[in-house]
Amino acid sequence: MNQESIGEVNAMPDYKTPLRDIRFVRDELLGYAAHYQSLPGCTEATSDVVSAILEEGAKFCENVIAPLNRIGDLEGCTWSADGVTTPTGFKEAYRQYVEGGWPSLAHETEYGGQGLPESLAMTVNEMLATASWAWSMYPGLSHGAMSTLHAHGTPEQKAAYLSKLVSGQWTGTMCLTEAHCGSDLGLLRTKAVPQADGSYRIEGTKIFISAGEHDMAENIVHIVLARLPDAPAGTKGISLFIVPKFLPGTDDGLGERNAVNCGSLEHKMGIHGNATCVLNFDGATGFLIGPPNKGLNCMFTFMNVARLGTAMQGLAHAELAFQGAIRYARERLQMRSLSGPKAPDKPADPIIVHPDVRRMLLTMKAFAEGNRALFYYAAKLVDVVQHSQDEAQCEQADSLLAFITPIAKAFMTETGFEAANHGVQVFGGHGYIAEHGMEQNVRDSRISCLYEGTTGIQSLDLLGRKVLMSQGELLKGFTKVVHKFCQANESDAVLKEFIEPLARLNKEWGESTMKIGMAAMQDREEVGAAAVDYLMYSGYICLAYFWADMARVAAGKLAAGTAEEGFYKAKLQTARFYYQRILPRTRAHLEAMLSGADSLMDMAEADFSLGY
Amino acid sequence: MNQESIGEVNAMPDYKTPLRDIRFVRDELLGYAAHYQSLPGCTEATSDVVSAILEEGAKFCENVIAPLNRIGDLEGCTWSADGVTTPTGFKEAYRQYVEGGWPSLAHETEYGGQGLPESLAMTVNEMLATASWAWSMYPGLSHGAMSTLHAHGTPEQKAAYLSKLVSGQWTGTMCLTEAHCGSDLGLLRTKAVPQADGSYRIEGTKIFISAGEHDMAENIVHIVLARLPDAPAGTKGISLFIVPKFLPGTDDGLGERNAVNCGSLEHKMGIHGNATCVLNFDGATGFLIGPPNKGLNCMFTFMNVARLGTAMQGLAHAELAFQGAIRYARERLQMRSLSGPKAPDKPADPIIVHPDVRRMLLTMKAFAEGNRALFYYAAKLVDVVQHSQDEAQCEQADSLLAFITPIAKAFMTETGFEAANHGVQVFGGHGYIAEHGMEQNVRDSRISCLYEGTTGIQSLDLLGRKVLMSQGELLKGFTKVVHKFCQANESDAVLKEFIEPLARLNKEWGESTMKIGMAAMQDREEVGAAAVDYLMYSGYICLAYFWADMARVAAGKLAAGTAEEGFYKAKLQTARFYYQRILPRTRAHLEAMLSGADSLMDMAEADFSLGY
Repeated sequence: MNQESIGEVNAMPDYKTPLRDIRFVRDELLGYAAHYQSLPGCTEATSDVVSAILEEGAKFCENVIAPLNRIGDLEGCTWSADGVTTPTGFKEAYRQYVEGGWPSLAHETEYGGQGLPESLAMTVNEMLATASWAWSMYPGLSHGAMSTLHAHGTPEQKAAYLSKLVSGQWTGTMCLTEAHCGSDLGLLRTKAVPQADGSYRIEGTKIFISAGEHDMAENIVHIVLARLPDAPAGTKGISLFIVPKFLPGTDDGLGERNAVNCGSLEHKMGIHGNATCVLNFDGATGFLIGPPNKGLNCMFTFMNVARLGTAMQGLAHAELAFQGAIRYARERLQMRSLSGPKAPDKPADPIIVHPDVRRMLLTMKAFAEGNRALFYYAAKLVDVVQHSQDEAQCEQADSLLAFITPIAKAFMTETGFEAANHGVQVFGGHGYIAEHGMEQNVRDSRISCLYEGTTGIQSLDLLGRKVLMSQGELLKGFTKVVHKFCQANESDAVLKEFIEPLARLNKEWGESTMKIGMAAMQDREEVGAAAVDYLMYSGYICLAYFWADMARVAAGKLAAGTAEEGFYKAKLQTARFYYQRILPRTRAHLEAMLSGADSLMDMAEADFSLGY
Repeated sequence: MNQESIGEVNAMPDYKTPLRDIRFVRDELLGYAAHYQSLPGCTEATSDVVSAILEEGAKFCENVIAPLNRIGDLEGCTWSADGVTTPTGFKEAYRQYVEGGWPSLAHETEYGGQGLPESLAMTVNEMLATASWAWSMYPGLSHGAMSTLHAHGTPEQKAAYLSKLVSGQWTGTMCLTEAHCGSDLGLLRTKAVPQADGSYRIEGTKIFISAGEHDMAENIVHIVLARLPDAPAGTKGISLFIVPKFLPGTDDGLGERNAVNCGSLEHKMGIHGNATCVLNFDGATGFLIGPPNKGLNCMFTFMNVARLGTAMQGLAHAELAFQGAIRYARERLQMRSLSGPKAPDKPADPIIVHPDVRRMLLTMKAFAEGNRALFYYAAKLVDVVQHSQDEAQCEQADSLLAFITPIAKAFMTETGFEAANHGVQVFGGHGYIAEHGMEQNVRDSRISCLYEGTTGIQSLDLLGRKVLMSQGELLKGFTKVVHKFCQANESDAVLKEFIEPLARLNKEWGESTMKIGMAAMQDREEVGAAAVDYLMYSGYICLAYFWADMARVAAGKLAAGTAEEGFYKAKLQTARFYYQRILPRTRAHLEAMLSGADSLMDMAEADFSLGY
């Protein structure tokens, strides 16, 4: 810790926005232009508008945000009784972010928003996230508060809070976790006692509140989960409260300072630039939002979007790892190629000639670009759910989104963490040294598999709540998409190497789900026993679908003739790499998930260890 | 970084030496007692002596070393122009370590050693390593220097240095890496110019020198790789030099301060308690050791033992992760078991009831205990190589050791890192918080896959140098062991679930190696393309052998009747878990390693990325 000194900020991988790939996925793969023009309320997102926003966003992220990533890690946040100070430059960058109008992109014009599609904001958020995840969490955390207000606030509540949050003048948080309850919110104890004036007195301590206190905005609006005095026990007795740091004042100004304070900051593995707060509510004034005791239900209405926000973190770290590693692999000279010198004029070959270095680079590339496709696919569904007037279309998108979200959250973050580690490995011993930024990327990424529902929790959600509780219907919604794709391309000779294994896996997916479902009817533990392997298995098949589809687009462009031959060939080659070297992992997960619960459940608790 | 304050040292997982398991592997699985009695020079290691040493070692590690692990992480080392200060308590613990006679355990009595077997020192080292890896590196790094002196020193050199190193009064290092060369030592530039007095003037800068400068011992003996003025280029022009921090003085005292200085400390992801030094040799006085230009060959003589020292780090982090996680999983209450409440008197069930938590705990347990078996198996081979007078036995052990060492180094560290991450995951969000120590375990473990030859380098060594260059003979040496084991137990009904898949895999191992060998004759890149998957595949099969053998021992004890039924049942159950849930990973590695080099080599370098 004391080994670091601020003076040595230097070599963090320099984020360059992968605009070409972003456009490939949005325009060529997923047809975003037509998608926007077909959706009521999204038609203003013309190609020109989108282009301008993406280019401006890219500049802002590269020039303003990316330079903060390492500073944030080195300095961290500073606690004092008066509040939390963010790292040098964070506040100023936020000012520019607000002035640039970035926070309001996808919000309703009624509250000062620009009324553009959520998916466009999600693309900009990906850039911000990759440039500096820790910084991007400050505006990112407002999302939950805004969604809650939007869905459940009274007109007065919306008037008092929404515009300020939309503009970025204020930020927001979601206060769920307490020391004794994380995954299990039914245990939470924070109390809300009704007062004569209709407000509530909030008492309790929340932990792990990201961006819970900081100096970047003048006010912070906390949405707090708490219990009314007469609330039933468990998850059915939780209500939501608005607890602003400063109560709204008269004349659009700030009122009284509320009794919510940051007690301390957590010392954590990474994302040092973001303040992870213990928040003490010492009789703070709160306002009920939504119906009493229905807090958890209210939150589920936007849980998918919030979880996609964390899924995005996996994409961000994979992209950053790839960018750092590819540059290093081209420059670092070490050993000769086994098939003869490739740079005979140099003392050794650049390490990109070595097959194992390429294996790691291609793994990062396959995850970054594959997960981008998965993420933008989900973002399109979000648009449809938010804007479509066609009930059937809306329902279908909602089902697909419900299915794909836990996969995106857990699979993208697990593979993002893997990619971050490959990034370190390409650097060899230098990867372990702070100045290159690759180890920070590992530390920053590790949290993504934990918060917003661990990988285990996402897996239970996928297999238990989504797939099995729908009798497999939610799975079928997606396998049907894959099936149609395979049928449509089954006679394509170029795509055969992808379509055949994909079709086989798609079928196996349904069959193996059925087997687990049957086993689960005998023994409920089978669901938990299979869940994580099932999720990863599903994730690899999802990505296989997107890689096959990207190969289809690329093959089409190559056949038609293109000036960007290298770009499209790389797509085809990465797809091939994915199918040959990554997709075999489904074999391991399949065997494990079908092996049953006994090997996990048979051991007596006392026998796990002796003497400790 | 600044988020940490020394005042908050508290909850690092408390190391408890797994003495019962250590004894199980040594005595019941590998027959160490008979092994010692059959080897010349090891017979003094009677069961009583061994027992006393293990028990004393356990106490020392638990009471003196383990409490330093978190302090070391928080404080790190401090550089000044006068030298490096280690974290609070490190120096005092080293004094006790030396006074206790621990450094000299396995060294020859001629140099003040206790003449006990190397394998016994390796067991004690495992305890030290698990208690605090960063601390244990200070004495650990002396090993290379001592081995070099022992194997290649003149009688005068041995007299001047060996006793001081053996007693621990001095420590040693190996100075290999330079900024532009890590894996590729042929590129190294440090110069050694002969002087009139027979000494050499050493000029150059070495980096990543662990324990390269510190305040724990009065002198540090560096073994430095450098080039003579007329040396051939590449690896065939490297010589070894002894460069002590203080030149040996008259009357057993310290002489003049030599011109070797620590220029700075690296800021790194973990192992903060160990000083990773940039060492400047500014015309330092050095003494040639071993024949000129044969430095690399000289080093290979003890490379196996040094790499096993790093393999051990994987075992250490897996064990520590398991110990932290099992305690937390028994205490942390969260959610009810899906099959009905298990602790109805409590607000929720301890998370050890959940199948996915058990999956992670059992994965850590399977790696910690399985890797311990692999490590002690290798340690036995080290004893035979060092002591056996039977040439055939010695040669066989040497071959097995050459084969198993890269597997142990890479597989144990990769799975150790995985286990460390499961340890974090069991803690949920709390795992990301420094005070629990689980995230430190991840950071500390990450280096083990990088130094002393990356996973990629170990894999090339295994597949290229060991297996293929021996025409498969080195592999056969081990598959024969497995084959005999399977034959001997093929009629055992209890072991059938292990023996059948093991025999099948053992056969497949040989066949798939043959396929890669054939492909490599056409295209040398096939070796690098298959190497890492081949190594991991091999590692999983090795561990399958050890788990089957542990199951055999456990089944025997259970059949015979035992008061430790839980302990032996857990061995059988963990073996079953390993076969059902971990071993399927061989399917993924097999497919990947047989998929050929094309998917890695076809992409043009320029096409890997656009614009960055």
